[in-house]
Amino acid sequence: MENETSELDWSDLNTLKEHWSELDHSSRKEKFARLNRPDAEELFLSFGPLEQIELIIDLPAVEKRSWVRLLALDDAADFLQNLDPEPRQEFLALLDEVSRQEVVGLLAYAEDEAGGVMNPRYIRLRPDMSVEEAIRYLRAQARTPIETIYYTYVLDYDQKLLGVVSFRELLLASPDKRVREIMKTDLVTVPEEMDREALSDVFSSHNFMALPVVDEIGHMKGIVTYDDIVDVVQKEATEDIQKLGGMEALDAPYFKTSFLEMMKKRAGWLMVLFIGEMFTATAMAQYEHAIAKAVVLSLFIPLIISSGGNSGSQASTLIIRSLALREIRLRDWWRVFMRELSAGLVLGGILGALGLFRVYAWHLWSPVYGEHYLLIAMTVACSVLGVVLWGTLTGAMLPFLLRRVGLDPASASAPMVATIVDVTGLVIYFSMASMFLSGTLL
Amino acid sequence: MENETSELDWSDLNTLKEHWSELDHSSRKEKFARLNRPDAEELFLSFGPLEQIELIIDLPAVEKRSWVRLLALDDAADFLQNLDPEPRQEFLALLDEVSRQEVVGLLAYAEDEAGGVMNPRYIRLRPDMSVEEAIRYLRAQARTPIETIYYTYVLDYDQKLLGVVSFRELLLASPDKRVREIMKTDLVTVPEEMDREALSDVFSSHNFMALPVVDEIGHMKGIVTYDDIVDVVQKEATEDIQKLGGMEALDAPYFKTSFLEMMKKRAGWLMVLFIGEMFTATAMAQYEHAIAKAVVLSLFIPLIISSGGNSGSQASTLIIRSLALREIRLRDWWRVFMRELSAGLVLGGILGALGLFRVYAWHLWSPVYGEHYLLIAMTVACSVLGVVLWGTLTGAMLPFLLRRVGLDPASASAPMVATIVDVTGLVIYFSMASMFLSGTLL
Repeated sequence: MENETSELDWSDLNTLKEHWSELDHSSRKEKFARLNRPDAEELFLSFGPLEQIELIIDLPAVEKRSWVRLLALDDAADFLQNLDPEPRQEFLALLDEVSRQEVVGLLAYAEDEAGGVMNPRYIRLRPDMSVEEAIRYLRAQARTPIETIYYTYVLDYDQKLLGVVSFRELLLASPDKRVREIMKTDLVTVPEEMDREALSDVFSSHNFMALPVVDEIGHMKGIVTYDDIVDVVQKEATEDIQKLGGMEALDAPYFKTSFLEMMKKRAGWLMVLFIGEMFTATAMAQYEHAIAKAVVLSLFIPLIISSGGNSGSQASTLIIRSLALREIRLRDWWRVFMRELSAGLVLGGILGALGLFRVYAWHLWSPVYGEHYLLIAMTVACSVLGVVLWGTLTGAMLPFLLRRVGLDPASASAPMVATIVDVTGLVIYFSMASMFLSGTLL
Repeated sequence: MENETSELDWSDLNTLKEHWSELDHSSRKEKFARLNRPDAEELFLSFGPLEQIELIIDLPAVEKRSWVRLLALDDAADFLQNLDPEPRQEFLALLDEVSRQEVVGLLAYAEDEAGGVMNPRYIRLRPDMSVEEAIRYLRAQARTPIETIYYTYVLDYDQKLLGVVSFRELLLASPDKRVREIMKTDLVTVPEEMDREALSDVFSSHNFMALPVVDEIGHMKGIVTYDDIVDVVQKEATEDIQKLGGMEALDAPYFKTSFLEMMKKRAGWLMVLFIGEMFTATAMAQYEHAIAKAVVLSLFIPLIISSGGNSGSQASTLIIRSLALREIRLRDWWRVFMRELSAGLVLGGILGALGLFRVYAWHLWSPVYGEHYLLIAMTVACSVLGVVLWGTLTGAMLPFLLRRVGLDPASASAPMVATIVDVTGLVIYFSMASMFLSGTLL
């Protein structure tokens, strides 16, 4: 249940943040304009690029400048990446020369690479500084808009990363020690082009607040901080979930995506699936004579093919998520196959028994299935067993196959697996029917 | 493609972490035993409770004690929560008296509440301390196993939370100021019983490293830190994804879940869906005479019902994720309805046209659809339009309905929507058929 307050205290910053998504464009701008400067800055900085753009795009150039200069450089790059080329140039021109060059550098990275979420500003120490000098330097830096001061990076004169020291370690060390003596050199670094899925994996297995990004020869390029990663993890999951639903991933929230854009993302896959599903009509045409002879067979078609789709959907979803979280690897395919083989047999057995019972029980109540109801019950039960087994194995193996050929396993969506399994499900069903019913109904 | 190195340097800690999941139980224990103490500690602390338990459960009691005392209190509680009652008592007995009481307090919270992921140790300041005193106190505290020293909390003598000061702010303030003068009193706090989905939402909208957890009268109980939240966000997404695949969420990774456990989580929903799908057989029985008269109608049954399932899967997935991320709220249901109405019409129109074309084109090539192929084509096209529209609206509205009655919207999985839509899809199809084909085929 939603917790909806009828009387809201809009002057309270937290209330405003929480209910922001419910306001329309003009009340957002009005509320924003009424805030005092510190509150307005806090609100602005807590937003993602789309909300930030909405708030300042219509302001006069001087005000635009003060807002865009408030952003950390990686956030400024995100902000610019979400603008059309013309306003992007305008905003770029509002940055100071040094920041502009750094931001342009960041814009060259794809949004989903480590380079695309990193911040090029961080605290640099020299290995020969004393701990006391380092702490003094850090206190001075705390004033500047650097994202984190809690990790410092030790670089040589060639910008090569030598080690890392946390602020906590600096505080604990005796003041006359050299930085080189206390720095940690067993480093976890991430390459510039690492994709954000792998990145969030590194963060969640190491529990760091920030990670250094380096190029192929060990030069430090920037840092990625934990707060960017929470967003990254959410975005990745959203993309995967949308793909699993049988569509292309949207790049923006539901109401922020234009209708046309949304139709493009949805219609493509629906058409592919529909065309794939047309093969069922072709397959069915092969069995037209069987159906003409025994119309009763047609009654169970939806039940049987949907069992395959449902069990395939379970298996594919399970495997896709485990692959994404690296709980299982490509090479585990055989272990997964053997496990899902057992799973398919057990699940198929349970559903098959239910199907057998359904036909039998129905017969006691109404004669709709005729005198051969037991044979029909056997046909249904064995078909369900076969189709569930087949659906489970297909759903489990398809993600491995897609990963193997370099595609995204999440494309093995529930609808896609169902489509593949439907045609074979029909073949299994009618083969069982001809086995059980030849000489009686067929 | 996976990047698989054939020659691994197992002495390297990062290599070991990365390939941990590929090792079997005995090589894990062997590798762990061979590490020097600092590396072993780092590895141990980077793991979740299940891996930690695996490593130390068989060690002698003295060694057990040194490992379990290494854990932060919230992590110790997680560790204990994953043990059976008997070893849990054994490990509890290994903690010192104070920690034991705090851990037992944490165990009382559900694992998915703020109280269940919080750490009861944090830095407490008094409002009348000077900044200089506070910094000195902090440096001393940096030595103790407190999870974060970068935020400090100002409490009165009654443990009531008055304000928060970041380490950075302390460093910037002049040393003779009082803590009360520089503390931030416009606080974001989270209640003990807030669920972790809402919690991750607060983190991602405020970008804090840590949040204070308070009880209903404002007493501070502990802090939740960002690193717990990355895991929480991953876990939440995994749960939702598994539910969307049409199963109960697993509590552990794929290979860590016992076969029996997995069957329980999968068979339940499959049975519910199968029983739901049985209504298609009942519905079909109503149309047995129509099929007997015009067998050609049966050919398109799988195609038509799957279109409804696929479009419903898209719509439900989209809405479920948007609800989870709070991009849309319960009260938005009408806006969503209107938008999905248009979407359903457009998507249904496109697929209907494809269906029309398919029947027509096939007829040119083979006479399988007989002389009334145009009427059949119209029946298929209009049914697809109707079924896609219906599937889209059902998929979009079902998550709202579930949320409204207090259930998890993620239960509106692709298979569940497909099951609901299949029966109605058949009704739509055969109604269209009787409209277009009465007097000719029917």
